[in-house]
Amino acid sequence: MQIAILLYAGVTALDAVGPYEVLSRMPGADVRFVGTETGPLLADGGALLLGVTHTLAETPAPDLVLVPGGPTTPTAMVDKEILAWLRSVHEGTTWTASVCSGAVILAAAGILKGRPATTHWAAMGPLRLMGAIPRPDERIVRTGKIVTAAGVSAGIDLGLWLVGEIAGRELAEAIQLTIEYDPQPPYDAGHMSKASEPVRKRAKQLLDERTDFKQTLVKPRIAWNRLIDLVRTGK
Amino acid sequence: MQIAILLYAGVTALDAVGPYEVLSRMPGADVRFVGTETGPLLADGGALLLGVTHTLAETPAPDLVLVPGGPTTPTAMVDKEILAWLRSVHEGTTWTASVCSGAVILAAAGILKGRPATTHWAAMGPLRLMGAIPRPDERIVRTGKIVTAAGVSAGIDLGLWLVGEIAGRELAEAIQLTIEYDPQPPYDAGHMSKASEPVRKRAKQLLDERTDFKQTLVKPRIAWNRLIDLVRTGK
Repeated sequence: MQIAILLYAGVTALDAVGPYEVLSRMPGADVRFVGTETGPLLADGGALLLGVTHTLAETPAPDLVLVPGGPTTPTAMVDKEILAWLRSVHEGTTWTASVCSGAVILAAAGILKGRPATTHWAAMGPLRLMGAIPRPDERIVRTGKIVTAAGVSAGIDLGLWLVGEIAGRELAEAIQLTIEYDPQPPYDAGHMSKASEPVRKRAKQLLDERTDFKQTLVKPRIAWNRLIDLVRTGK
Repeated sequence: MQIAILLYAGVTALDAVGPYEVLSRMPGADVRFVGTETGPLLADGGALLLGVTHTLAETPAPDLVLVPGGPTTPTAMVDKEILAWLRSVHEGTTWTASVCSGAVILAAAGILKGRPATTHWAAMGPLRLMGAIPRPDERIVRTGKIVTAAGVSAGIDLGLWLVGEIAGRELAEAIQLTIEYDPQPPYDAGHMSKASEPVRKRAKQLLDERTDFKQTLVKPRIAWNRLIDLVRTGK
């Protein structure tokens, strides 16, 4: 089964890597990282380079497409090439999935119109504006063959859920054991309903700063050596 | 604070990206991905390229060093340049950390001799052979300034634990909320003590197959375009 994970400059790495780490362990999985052109892209956070190995044009018929989010979602959701590709491949997928604000990109492509979906808590407003019906209290929302996950780390849960649907519970559990996914967060503030008011405020500040940072640093489609220089010098 | 995350060919991406996603959100964090030379490396799973932006030689004094694991740990743990660098930087770190079989690399450098540590369940034997005292039932083990985490996904818990130690609980909770780390695995098989016998057996098979696969595909230190070809053609 061909699995295409979309990458774009400023993507949040864990949104993509969480599901990759799970889905790539399915026997028969043929995972590829796709984008508007091949080569490295700078991820959210400004220090990690991720590689696109196949263009969108070279990937016309994936069985599963997964769209991660990031602070540059607003750029990706107006990229006509990405939106046209998503509309086209969605016709033939078995599963169309998103993590975090990736749902807003799916929505911008018209794929979530009038449908229930989840996303990062900070992206619920844009998701609604794009025509979907936000489900802020659900970690994974399925509607037909479309499945959306909450913010960043929810992609691991999504990956296991998908493996269960595709290949059954035993394999999903075996992959869970392989990645030793027995979460023991030292704190319990991972959802808006669980975090204190000062923690919520701080989290919003962190997201705002991160977005500002990325706007100066993310330069899509530049060469590998130039990207290394960008990461090293910060400019 | 300078944070150096080690990369090497065949590294398990989530081992590195989980902590990155957490640690890079600390105000003042200066994260870099280091390796024996700059450029892209192929991660475990054979589809994802990750970029090294700084060499080990260029990174003589990180405040925090983090060593991820992977099926190619046996190669990294006999790499003299990596071992010498780890011994050297460990002298001056505030924290020396590992995820998954990264602990075995730390142990091979002599850093865990006679000390308690954890690692991926499949690497407990090698960890013991390298002179550490395995703690298979603990997700995070601290001994002085050294902290080791269990397999793959445990790096997220480790990252949050480290932020709590470095910058306090409020920031750690804010980052937990930012990455929406409110785990809801659809199954409960993430630890050997929780998985059924068939699931354990399947997980071991998956790991064995993955290791075989990587041995044919991982070619360190080759050029970006050649790596893209490798990923695309599988040979």
